[in-house]
Amino acid sequence: ISPLRWEGGVLRLIDQRLVPYETKWLDLKSWEEVRDAIRDMVVRGAPAIGITAAFGMALCAIGFEGDGGDELLEVLEEAGRGLNDARPTAVNLSWAVKRMLNAAQSAKDAGHSVMEIKGLLEKEAINIWMEDVISNLEMGKFGAQLIKDGSTILTHCNAGALATGGYGTALGVVRYAHFSGKRIKVLADETRPWLQGIRLTAWELLEDGIEVEVICDNAAGFFMKRGEVDCVVVGADRIALNGDVANKIGTYSVAELAKANSIPFYVAAPFSTIDISTRSGEDIPIEERSSIEVTTIKGITLGPENVIARNPVFDVTPNELITAIITDRGILSPPYEDAIERCLRKSS
Amino acid sequence: ISPLRWEGGVLRLIDQRLVPYETKWLDLKSWEEVRDAIRDMVVRGAPAIGITAAFGMALCAIGFEGDGGDELLEVLEEAGRGLNDARPTAVNLSWAVKRMLNAAQSAKDAGHSVMEIKGLLEKEAINIWMEDVISNLEMGKFGAQLIKDGSTILTHCNAGALATGGYGTALGVVRYAHFSGKRIKVLADETRPWLQGIRLTAWELLEDGIEVEVICDNAAGFFMKRGEVDCVVVGADRIALNGDVANKIGTYSVAELAKANSIPFYVAAPFSTIDISTRSGEDIPIEERSSIEVTTIKGITLGPENVIARNPVFDVTPNELITAIITDRGILSPPYEDAIERCLRKSS
Repeated sequence: ISPLRWEGGVLRLIDQRLVPYETKWLDLKSWEEVRDAIRDMVVRGAPAIGITAAFGMALCAIGFEGDGGDELLEVLEEAGRGLNDARPTAVNLSWAVKRMLNAAQSAKDAGHSVMEIKGLLEKEAINIWMEDVISNLEMGKFGAQLIKDGSTILTHCNAGALATGGYGTALGVVRYAHFSGKRIKVLADETRPWLQGIRLTAWELLEDGIEVEVICDNAAGFFMKRGEVDCVVVGADRIALNGDVANKIGTYSVAELAKANSIPFYVAAPFSTIDISTRSGEDIPIEERSSIEVTTIKGITLGPENVIARNPVFDVTPNELITAIITDRGILSPPYEDAIERCLRKSS
Repeated sequence: ISPLRWEGGVLRLIDQRLVPYETKWLDLKSWEEVRDAIRDMVVRGAPAIGITAAFGMALCAIGFEGDGGDELLEVLEEAGRGLNDARPTAVNLSWAVKRMLNAAQSAKDAGHSVMEIKGLLEKEAINIWMEDVISNLEMGKFGAQLIKDGSTILTHCNAGALATGGYGTALGVVRYAHFSGKRIKVLADETRPWLQGIRLTAWELLEDGIEVEVICDNAAGFFMKRGEVDCVVVGADRIALNGDVANKIGTYSVAELAKANSIPFYVAAPFSTIDISTRSGEDIPIEERSSIEVTTIKGITLGPENVIARNPVFDVTPNELITAIITDRGILSPPYEDAIERCLRKSS
């Protein structure tokens, strides 16, 4: 399962607002259409948003009708700003945009023609996508070591194939454990207001024949306290240098409940989710979306007509609640600032 | 607002499954109809269920066509068992049934005729109802002392007028604080799966002109951590002798999050909610209802067709997470076993 396809100049996205009721692919041909798709939640999940934005940049270049390299770079920078603004919290978006801009700059500096730069940017976007799939497999392999045979794993939101280029971060760990022969079960928080848990996570796992039961978000603590949860694995939208993790609203609550019940709490995310320019969780902007996303489901009004809801869509889990961070470069343990710096030194 | 009316031999219940979309009153004329209404969530909220069951017992007596007191008592005992089985967790149900049976027994022992016993049982049910409303006002008065001017109060589920004979337990405290001139705001957890928070609590508070914002259950921790919650007030379905509290699923999680963020966590419930025959929360049966209540809303399927959900509808909050229990006999502080015993001695 992958949430996107690239068909020579057209980005096709599965409309995740409709999964699993309907399989509808949207064809995007400009960076503006890509920006709107990100903003309107056609695609969601930090790594998937990053990949989508990379193709948005490629589409911007492909659609460029001039022949000056400088002019192309200006147009790309404008598209980059527009894409960045579509969702503020996930770092993968700005990371992918920056990588595409760097690729364009390098190609221009190396004396490539506009036509050549277009081809290189298409290749770079495909690379970002493929690297993500490989990174998920790496994470799965590392993370599966932490999953004992017979475990029940609680997860929140969807950090699966649909949230990434393919395999999944948190669900990549689950998949790897399952396909390597461990008997596991997943408890999936339904994840209001968008219901990614019951719609996307449950669907993905059922498709793969992995045992899953859905629970209301407010029941996670109940099952932990009853001893029915062996560990928690979630994804991440941005990780600060000190190991604080921004992820789907409700993640912090799950982490606090895991700590109170002495249950390991793992975050699975590609190393690129770590934003070294963000020192702590306090510096991460938290997106607040419209009230109507909470007060209605599929157009049906849930409460009184005049009720107002608050709708923050991410929260920050402080590093002290996180047992380990599973990345494609290995498993990071606290203190995270040291662990992250060691990883950075190793790769430089 | 009251969820029930008694019109000489007919119990009228507002169908709380439809509030606030539709105001539909159901007419119940037999104890079996009352049992079904309790089981099917036409009426919910521990005190309201108790009052409804009392009228169920009265309807059983009124419908009795024999003329033997012993026979009437047998019929009442059978009805009592049927009503008790409708919902297992709330103690108010069995408490009200027992009180009605005791009233019948006393009346028979005192030599009253079947006709007289019928009248006395109707009166006893009305007494239970009116006592509950008075008890709510007492609780409101005691509890409002704990609410500072300018507070934001987080609540879970609906412990309001609709959950009681009239005024509300947790929302009784909120109402009393509001109408005594304190500026307060309520954050209402939407409370999946039945959405009592957005449907009932938000509606009641908007009707009374009290400021309210709804949040998804998984956002409570976020707002606590941001310093936007000054205290939590919830109701209770059963309180054990050691102060452990069974209440709507999710209450335990809210309590754990309140503790982690140093926020006072208050439970408001009539003293009759304390079940001295239950030593601790471990002895409280937790009702688990059907999967479909989670996987659908208003008949709309939320996830894949073949997904299964777990649906425990209550949880137990351990006494050490509870700052105080607000009752109609005053505010109880830990250790609760001592506080409860002092109250019992005072009244005997």
